[in-house]
Amino acid sequence: MRTVDLRIDAAWIVPVESPGTLTGHALIVDAGKIAAIVASADADAQFSPRERMSLPNHVLVPGFVNAHTHSAMTLMRGIADDVPLKAWLTQHIWPRESRFVSPEFVHDGTMLACAEMLRGGVTACNDMYFYPGDAVRAYESTGMRALIGLPVLDFPTAYAADAEAYLARGLEARDAWKRVAHVAFSLAPHAPYTVGDATFSRIVTYARQLDLPIQTHLAETRLEVDEARAATGTTTLARLDTLGATGPNFIAVHAVHLDEHDIATLVRHRCHVVHCPASNMKLASGIAPVARLVAEGVNVALGTDGAASNNRLDMMSEMRLASLLAKVSTGDASALPAHQVLAMATLNGARALGFDDVTGSLVAGKDADIVAVDQGTVTTQPVFDPVSHLVNVAERGDVTDVWVRGRRMVAGRSLVAIDEASILARTRIWQHKLEA
Amino acid sequence: MRTVDLRIDAAWIVPVESPGTLTGHALIVDAGKIAAIVASADADAQFSPRERMSLPNHVLVPGFVNAHTHSAMTLMRGIADDVPLKAWLTQHIWPRESRFVSPEFVHDGTMLACAEMLRGGVTACNDMYFYPGDAVRAYESTGMRALIGLPVLDFPTAYAADAEAYLARGLEARDAWKRVAHVAFSLAPHAPYTVGDATFSRIVTYARQLDLPIQTHLAETRLEVDEARAATGTTTLARLDTLGATGPNFIAVHAVHLDEHDIATLVRHRCHVVHCPASNMKLASGIAPVARLVAEGVNVALGTDGAASNNRLDMMSEMRLASLLAKVSTGDASALPAHQVLAMATLNGARALGFDDVTGSLVAGKDADIVAVDQGTVTTQPVFDPVSHLVNVAERGDVTDVWVRGRRMVAGRSLVAIDEASILARTRIWQHKLEA
Repeated sequence: MRTVDLRIDAAWIVPVESPGTLTGHALIVDAGKIAAIVASADADAQFSPRERMSLPNHVLVPGFVNAHTHSAMTLMRGIADDVPLKAWLTQHIWPRESRFVSPEFVHDGTMLACAEMLRGGVTACNDMYFYPGDAVRAYESTGMRALIGLPVLDFPTAYAADAEAYLARGLEARDAWKRVAHVAFSLAPHAPYTVGDATFSRIVTYARQLDLPIQTHLAETRLEVDEARAATGTTTLARLDTLGATGPNFIAVHAVHLDEHDIATLVRHRCHVVHCPASNMKLASGIAPVARLVAEGVNVALGTDGAASNNRLDMMSEMRLASLLAKVSTGDASALPAHQVLAMATLNGARALGFDDVTGSLVAGKDADIVAVDQGTVTTQPVFDPVSHLVNVAERGDVTDVWVRGRRMVAGRSLVAIDEASILARTRIWQHKLEA
Repeated sequence: MRTVDLRIDAAWIVPVESPGTLTGHALIVDAGKIAAIVASADADAQFSPRERMSLPNHVLVPGFVNAHTHSAMTLMRGIADDVPLKAWLTQHIWPRESRFVSPEFVHDGTMLACAEMLRGGVTACNDMYFYPGDAVRAYESTGMRALIGLPVLDFPTAYAADAEAYLARGLEARDAWKRVAHVAFSLAPHAPYTVGDATFSRIVTYARQLDLPIQTHLAETRLEVDEARAATGTTTLARLDTLGATGPNFIAVHAVHLDEHDIATLVRHRCHVVHCPASNMKLASGIAPVARLVAEGVNVALGTDGAASNNRLDMMSEMRLASLLAKVSTGDASALPAHQVLAMATLNGARALGFDDVTGSLVAGKDADIVAVDQGTVTTQPVFDPVSHLVNVAERGDVTDVWVRGRRMVAGRSLVAIDEASILARTRIWQHKLEA
């Protein structure tokens, strides 16, 4: 008989590692890890838990992985709607960023993002923004897992003057925050249209030397693709491929406008794609060929993008949008069935971020990153298939309990272990500044 | 000084009748009606309320109008996913309906639908299903406002043997339930492909004699449109126009596949269109030309369709989908701005259903159908524009309080005035039967 920290008996457990839903099972947590998933009937004989929870109307799933976001931008949630990407960036976002973005802005915005994401069952994210060290401060204090994109641009901002400075500041942050075990780093050239060949080549060299993933916004709009073809005679992905950026450590964010050659490149190099349906729809960027990419074997993860273009960091909402958009855009109602979408929001995200050894599915030995979703309410009943309900019916308000590495972050639909009031107070201060 | 039932001071009030958001105002309710909306500073001198509520983080909006649903089908929520409309109907829904649908099924399913809709701020709906009298029983007991579609098909079901019997049963139900003041009736031929010319003509005659609206599923799929053109040489709307069905009392549900002539017909006859984005996406039916219809001056409302093809009755989710889908499908990020979408979900719905004299906007004299949405949480802060947040950020879990004709239905995020436990118990019984 093994003494363990926690036993959770739930109506359904969806491990995600392979399709299928377990009923009548218990999930056992010990020392921050999943110790076992066993039939409830057998658990009594094997485990003596210090704490026990019974969730008779709930489904347990792995913590969601938000595979693309700009956490600090949560402070600019909904600051400019109903404008396309180029105008949105140049007229609304970049001017405000140049005035307001600072280490404190990034810390406070990332705290708000962590609170929002944890509340909705997101236990890991891929964050790309300025002052990455100050973002790590937030991930350290909240305990949320993150891949940090060290940003690189070929034009100056308040954060850095030129590509060299971006890289230097980024690698400095990485050195300073290496000790936070649940945070990892990547190189994040903003986009092919803001980063030139010389800088991209240098990033590729650094990535090889330091064994860091590369992530970039790619082929997000038709305009980007057309301008690139006019300037270089080829696609942005072909250009990055020539520069040596592609590979199993390359994360292509958005990947909306791809040609046949691009798709073959993603397949051949085993690149990861992060699909951001809400952002692509809201900015009218287009519809990524997700069902096609999945059929070709590309690892497709899901991301919210920043709250300024979404306007939420809500992976349950993103799952539903991915499912609905794939169906209507292909004319095939069977495109992206629910289990596939759930995998995109969990295990595929963990794979893209290099976290799949520790999170993304419910299997013994992985960290206890767990989400419980109530499906016993009048807005969710009846339940014929709890996985369909996760994608089509439940919303983040139905998330009742969240654990990150075995530590409870949400209990009974409320954030615990995070000082919500102080986050809200800091948010109001930033709102007043941004409105001024 | 006038003594009134209730004064609500909210951070924002959005009347919808004209664009704009009021701050620092109070909404006054008396005898089930909106007595006034006045500046909070002036309210003290004018009104002495029996009850007073302060909602400093909330936005008040009119109750949402779900302009197309099949309420009782909520018992089949998620029973068949990932199949297109024709297979979904013929292989999954119709066989189950023929076995299980009964007066009790309709009553119990409609009770569940009412609970779900009220929880999410939906105070009125347009319901089209079998045994309409048994649906009215549910609307009477819950107090929810409804337009009841009296169903007509040219093939037999357990409910009726032929078109004549459908009409007779429907009109019987109308006579029996006339006394319920918050319920109205319409004639609901299921679709042009299930109802022939003879029956449609007869429905048109009845509609004129009894002054009833006509509503039908129209041009939902490409297949329907192609088959109609092959059989009749024209579109389904042109056919119904020839039969005299079109007019300001005609509600075209879905209206996905329209040609130029169809659009001109809808405009000329001042017909109403109900857009159902989730259902159209999930069944891969297509994308309705909503921005175009709105630009042409057609009154476009929003509907969830039934929970078997959505899989929710959630108008907040429907607003976001309508906004996002219009943007990505037109390539125009400014398509369907937030205030327009909110109007579709409220006032336009009330107009389509003929309820706009009593609901759909917050103006003095209308019934007090009111929804309060909390925008003070970590998932909704900061707020730059509360109307944008209603469409892009908030979800139905953020609905805290709902009134129907001045009666509180939701308080502090919980249903009141409805016996949730008994609804859930009945739902479980039906689930077991449907699974057997």
